[in-house]
Amino acid sequence: MKKKNIKIDPTRLAQKYYEEVRQEVEKQKLKLKLVGLLTEHSGPSKTYATYTRRGCEAAGIDFDLWEISRLKVEDTLDELDRRKDVHGVIVYYPVFASEQDHYIRDLLSFKKDVEGLNSYWARKLYHNERFVDQEKTKKAILPCTPLAILKLLSETGVAKSGEKPLGSQVISIFNRSEIVGRPLASMLANDGAKVYSIDIHGTLEVNGPEIKESPVERPQALSEADVIITGVPTREFKLVSASEIKEGAVCLNFSTLKNFNKDIMGKASHFVPRVGPMTIAMVMRNTLRLYQNFHSSGL
Amino acid sequence: MKKKNIKIDPTRLAQKYYEEVRQEVEKQKLKLKLVGLLTEHSGPSKTYATYTRRGCEAAGIDFDLWEISRLKVEDTLDELDRRKDVHGVIVYYPVFASEQDHYIRDLLSFKKDVEGLNSYWARKLYHNERFVDQEKTKKAILPCTPLAILKLLSETGVAKSGEKPLGSQVISIFNRSEIVGRPLASMLANDGAKVYSIDIHGTLEVNGPEIKESPVERPQALSEADVIITGVPTREFKLVSASEIKEGAVCLNFSTLKNFNKDIMGKASHFVPRVGPMTIAMVMRNTLRLYQNFHSSGL
Repeated sequence: MKKKNIKIDPTRLAQKYYEEVRQEVEKQKLKLKLVGLLTEHSGPSKTYATYTRRGCEAAGIDFDLWEISRLKVEDTLDELDRRKDVHGVIVYYPVFASEQDHYIRDLLSFKKDVEGLNSYWARKLYHNERFVDQEKTKKAILPCTPLAILKLLSETGVAKSGEKPLGSQVISIFNRSEIVGRPLASMLANDGAKVYSIDIHGTLEVNGPEIKESPVERPQALSEADVIITGVPTREFKLVSASEIKEGAVCLNFSTLKNFNKDIMGKASHFVPRVGPMTIAMVMRNTLRLYQNFHSSGL
Repeated sequence: MKKKNIKIDPTRLAQKYYEEVRQEVEKQKLKLKLVGLLTEHSGPSKTYATYTRRGCEAAGIDFDLWEISRLKVEDTLDELDRRKDVHGVIVYYPVFASEQDHYIRDLLSFKKDVEGLNSYWARKLYHNERFVDQEKTKKAILPCTPLAILKLLSETGVAKSGEKPLGSQVISIFNRSEIVGRPLASMLANDGAKVYSIDIHGTLEVNGPEIKESPVERPQALSEADVIITGVPTREFKLVSASEIKEGAVCLNFSTLKNFNKDIMGKASHFVPRVGPMTIAMVMRNTLRLYQNFHSSGL
């Protein structure tokens, strides 16, 4: 019988990644600079900026926070693209809180897109292209929160080694946003898992590059899953409870709201209650990687 | 005193553009093919597809409608990009009815994007770059509905000739979507107008490339405007009435819902109650232009 009740603290794992980046930065005497663009001066984006600053301090990366009007974002991104001393840029959304934010997301050059959110990186991901160059020396960037979740899942031992580390696992994801749920489903499926991707419009089943409509609903998606990942940003969501899940399942929540009932701790093998600190650590990791890929030779 | 009560029928003006395209197609013996991708088999997107077919017939352009699963859209766009016998592609949204539709919009090559919606064309528009090439022989594509609105406004005589045909005009637009309201504001401002761009988040004032936050609210935006453009897709919007507008104002609605009270006919100089048929005519115009720009020499 599997071990139970292991709660995983993303802050501790994040330290390991900060340390890795810091050692590399010190060894190579790098001067990396990340710029954050903040247009809302309070709320979650301000908090995210504060955490980015702390992450940068831990990783030995310079951080500048530019607080600007939303109407200056486009011109500022142009400027930051040209600046040779800036290696990564992070925009704290929402900026316009409308479709216009999608336009903004693609204005930044992929070479400075430390969050891995623009469409250049999205296409790489959805086509399972893991390198930027033909010679396969430059690894592609992955979006920070999905990458953070992958690293946290590795901690639970759910991933084996080899080509398809998640082979034979069933993973259910309650979220299909473009930022987390959809890329995550694709990454997990590329690693061999059978993924149920669930949102209010229904369920898709993802197997490697194959995606199909699925009749599977919440009860089966929960009872069948070896790993359950939630990111539902509404209090209307009925919390996932022990009676719905498989003995020994791994449960992970990346929503800022609770999505699991606490009784799951009696039945789950591992529970990851939040992901945030690991997301920031992955920002640092991506900043270093973008530098190595695109900026180190003065390109 | 200005003339009143002129109602403009977009269907009649559309005929003129169909005729223009048809003459060019016949003169040059072109074989143009447009493919429509439809994933919802009923509702407004099906209707739009039906109108596209009629527009193609009127303009002498071949039209194929491919009815496919939403999960096949990405691969199908790849295929259509490669097909030399296909010169334009139109995707009938919604496909996923989520942010994923933004991802899809940018998958199609700009060379076949007859609606002018992908980010290549959007950037051209927002930077007022009117040509594709350095030599200024290839005119940029503009998005169909904003372009249709410009052509309809020309019919009212509100635009003068010259560099800044809308100089000294105040134009209020109730809509700031990425598809119509925002590009339209930019296009009208590039032509010299002072534009109030209004949505539920507030008002922006656009003057040429300058955009600023504005304290102006509905009453002033309506009483000051020479041209009032509405595209509000909710019945909660209070219909614009005669008492709110300036004597002789031009009123145009592109929403599928009524946005003007019928009493405006006693005070407006011109009223354009809908735009749809002209949007389709602009699809035909863009198909021809993309062909001339990118496909005619076998590129």
